[in-house]
Amino acid sequence: MPESANRVILFDTTLRDGEQSPGATMNLREKVHMARQLELLGVDIIEAGFAASSAGDFEAVATVAKEIREATVASLCRTVIEDIDKAAEALRHAKKSRLHLFIATSPLHMEFKLKLSPDEVLKATDQAVRHAVSCCTDVEFSCEDASRSDPDFMVEVCRTAAAAGAVTLNIPDTVGYAQPDEFAERIAYLKARIPAKVIISVHCHNDLGLAVANTLAALRAGARQAEVTVGGIGERAGNCALEELIMALAVRNPYYRLEHGIHTQQIFPSVRALSRIIGRPIPVNKPVVGANAFAHEAGIHQAGVLANPATYEIMTPESIGLSSSHIVLGKHSGKNAIRSKLEDMGYSLDNAQIDLILAAVKELADKKKDIFDEDLEALVLEEVYRLPDKYRLLHLTVQSGDGGLPPCAMLALEIDGARREHAQFGVGPIDAVFRGIAATVGRSPKLEQYAVNAITGGTDALGEVTVRISENGKSTVGRGSHPDIINASARAYLNALNRLAKMREEM
Amino acid sequence: MPESANRVILFDTTLRDGEQSPGATMNLREKVHMARQLELLGVDIIEAGFAASSAGDFEAVATVAKEIREATVASLCRTVIEDIDKAAEALRHAKKSRLHLFIATSPLHMEFKLKLSPDEVLKATDQAVRHAVSCCTDVEFSCEDASRSDPDFMVEVCRTAAAAGAVTLNIPDTVGYAQPDEFAERIAYLKARIPAKVIISVHCHNDLGLAVANTLAALRAGARQAEVTVGGIGERAGNCALEELIMALAVRNPYYRLEHGIHTQQIFPSVRALSRIIGRPIPVNKPVVGANAFAHEAGIHQAGVLANPATYEIMTPESIGLSSSHIVLGKHSGKNAIRSKLEDMGYSLDNAQIDLILAAVKELADKKKDIFDEDLEALVLEEVYRLPDKYRLLHLTVQSGDGGLPPCAMLALEIDGARREHAQFGVGPIDAVFRGIAATVGRSPKLEQYAVNAITGGTDALGEVTVRISENGKSTVGRGSHPDIINASARAYLNALNRLAKMREEM
Repeated sequence: MPESANRVILFDTTLRDGEQSPGATMNLREKVHMARQLELLGVDIIEAGFAASSAGDFEAVATVAKEIREATVASLCRTVIEDIDKAAEALRHAKKSRLHLFIATSPLHMEFKLKLSPDEVLKATDQAVRHAVSCCTDVEFSCEDASRSDPDFMVEVCRTAAAAGAVTLNIPDTVGYAQPDEFAERIAYLKARIPAKVIISVHCHNDLGLAVANTLAALRAGARQAEVTVGGIGERAGNCALEELIMALAVRNPYYRLEHGIHTQQIFPSVRALSRIIGRPIPVNKPVVGANAFAHEAGIHQAGVLANPATYEIMTPESIGLSSSHIVLGKHSGKNAIRSKLEDMGYSLDNAQIDLILAAVKELADKKKDIFDEDLEALVLEEVYRLPDKYRLLHLTVQSGDGGLPPCAMLALEIDGARREHAQFGVGPIDAVFRGIAATVGRSPKLEQYAVNAITGGTDALGEVTVRISENGKSTVGRGSHPDIINASARAYLNALNRLAKMREEM
Repeated sequence: MPESANRVILFDTTLRDGEQSPGATMNLREKVHMARQLELLGVDIIEAGFAASSAGDFEAVATVAKEIREATVASLCRTVIEDIDKAAEALRHAKKSRLHLFIATSPLHMEFKLKLSPDEVLKATDQAVRHAVSCCTDVEFSCEDASRSDPDFMVEVCRTAAAAGAVTLNIPDTVGYAQPDEFAERIAYLKARIPAKVIISVHCHNDLGLAVANTLAALRAGARQAEVTVGGIGERAGNCALEELIMALAVRNPYYRLEHGIHTQQIFPSVRALSRIIGRPIPVNKPVVGANAFAHEAGIHQAGVLANPATYEIMTPESIGLSSSHIVLGKHSGKNAIRSKLEDMGYSLDNAQIDLILAAVKELADKKKDIFDEDLEALVLEEVYRLPDKYRLLHLTVQSGDGGLPPCAMLALEIDGARREHAQFGVGPIDAVFRGIAATVGRSPKLEQYAVNAITGGTDALGEVTVRISENGKSTVGRGSHPDIINASARAYLNALNRLAKMREEM
């Protein structure tokens, strides 16, 4: 990492804080793909998970650690020896690794959650950081709920961690409570009381819509690491959005005079990739990356933009990698065209995987004239990143109308290799399909969310459906895409059921 | 309005800046409903439109002015005599009215958009404000693109407007360029140079995710009016979100010590009503009102919340009107139950309208066991707020499957009273339905957006579909709801076509 005094270190926690938010679960392949995309984007540190929290998180941290060569890979851990050992083990093959320890320092968290006295928190900090430093040279320490902690106690805990060897001290606004000026004061207060070589980091939540503002205020007060997520995903209202922070630093560079390693042209591809993976559309008025960010409807605005785009645009679509030209694939595109297109989009696939995509492109091209980047991305997610299936759709016919009978789904599934057929009425055709599938596989999950995104324009668009189902307290997200929305829904529902089945096997 | 020095005036521009953003168009009935909801919410001023910009805006301002009794109703106008006269005419029947004049003051806007010299801008300001004051005692003046204007020139224009009689001076961050500290400095600089009795207002855009932070910073620097929108809708990335600003002031009341007239329990109902009307789902991680705002997934967070909710929640769901108990209507609910339920939800309907809803509830109750608030709201929007129809759906049957033929839609429409039948293949069933309808009515609009929101849980949820279509540069949004998603799609498409037809008639 460059050592300039004005260099901001970008610590991305999309795969940890982001992934632990409801509906943002990713499987291992998806995490690895996002980690590669984050490396293209230029983040300095990728927090890949919380290794001790589950076998899945351990595997994710270990796999990302092996795959990533430029960025530092971090794992979260409590100030508990076993957590630290697990994290260090998961990071064993990383080129550059970091242990990220945390313990809460607010009266509320110490009393109700930790049930520890302030002295016990200090002691745990000292012991855990000393142990972590013996495993890894790069140790970050966080005071959870710092913004609601007594400033002097917070400083004392931070000084203890620094004395024990932590090189980065992170001040999280865990519940999104801080206001910019007071948060900046807290950072300046800490900075005056710790060794100059220790880097101050901030981790802001967006409960009151202030995560980006608080992060910027902290950077002006001397913090030099920002913890962010792509699209601002994360617990509750989410974290500081990487794209908003970076574009504020870019657009107002003469004001902030801070440097960073982000390639802004990778911002839109990163947000789009994440949106596909977690099945959550980008809100139209999302700053920087929403569909309306560069749209102008009012007559006065349109006239202004025609005269000079700077009248109503402070950044260009190109600067965030939003280009209006799509290279289009079609029926006659060969393997090399697809391989090169996928490489441009940041996917590095093997030969067998490219063959799968080639076949899927040809099948899609029979149904749909033009194939856009978004269609190709949807195919990759469906064909390559999905888990091996326990349940598979063989045939589906739906009849729906007002002839006196409710809609009916007639379907055939393959379940562990055996064929099963079933016909089922429903309130609507999707209801009939979901009930039919549930009855055929003999399960009755609760449908928690159903979303359809038309990926590309036109009525022949490839429809992408996301469903979220739950059973016995476990929930999964499934995705399916197909030009026929009912077929896409069936695929999404089966994908979610396959993921649930996989979770049961892992237990 | 109360006169306390700490009282913040809330100026809501959902119906003007919000409505002019792509995809947020509302018809007259929808605007009147939102205006009533804003009055329940407790905003001080409702900007109902830009009267001189179109006949539709004039009618919206005039109708809202007649309907609203507590709040002040405002219309936007350029510093042009005809604009001011139109706005004053539209506001004639308002109990309390305001004229909101604006002219740009940044070098970029003056040179490229207005093609006026600074002196000409000063002169236009003086003349227009003097004329406005002769029409209306309450005149607000805005320096468009103020945050990129020379501070001394901005002050000079503001002093000119105040000398001419403007009682509120609005400083917009038109392009979302400002950063909190510098914006606060600009406000303090202005405040020191204008008469104490003039109220300073701010209007912040969210291009860099800082609209709420900039508004809060301005209030700390002495501004006492905030221009906001519900859900933060508006041009590009939108405006300062009312709910985030208000909850920051509420949660951190001892820090800000500012008062306002908002009833926070009306926040969620307001955001939900708007979301339905413009057909745009509330993003799950939207601060304050998103589905994840009060959700906790990580084990550590769940344990904390069980021990004491304050560990991870700085506000309660109840405080924003998000109650988990839905009063449910069913097949046997009578007219009085429905009337009282609708009144609780802020709808004031006449007898004939309630009869329409009653019939729709009974029809829906045949298909779906429980009817939730959200279902009822969807029915009101569809049955009462829709425009008189040129095209109507009589029958729809869809066959979709993998038997060798593409999906087929068989439909009958009523067009200006005459029955037409048509059968049409498509890539998917929705494609078949949309193509079939377009062919039957003899039009070929472009489908720009297609969105499905499952309103309530369960696979028998009432699906709500929103489509946006365009033809010859005009675009409209249509909505349809039905437990059968294909039927809901057909209704939404026809609703959009009916709106387009209505627009053609109005020209």
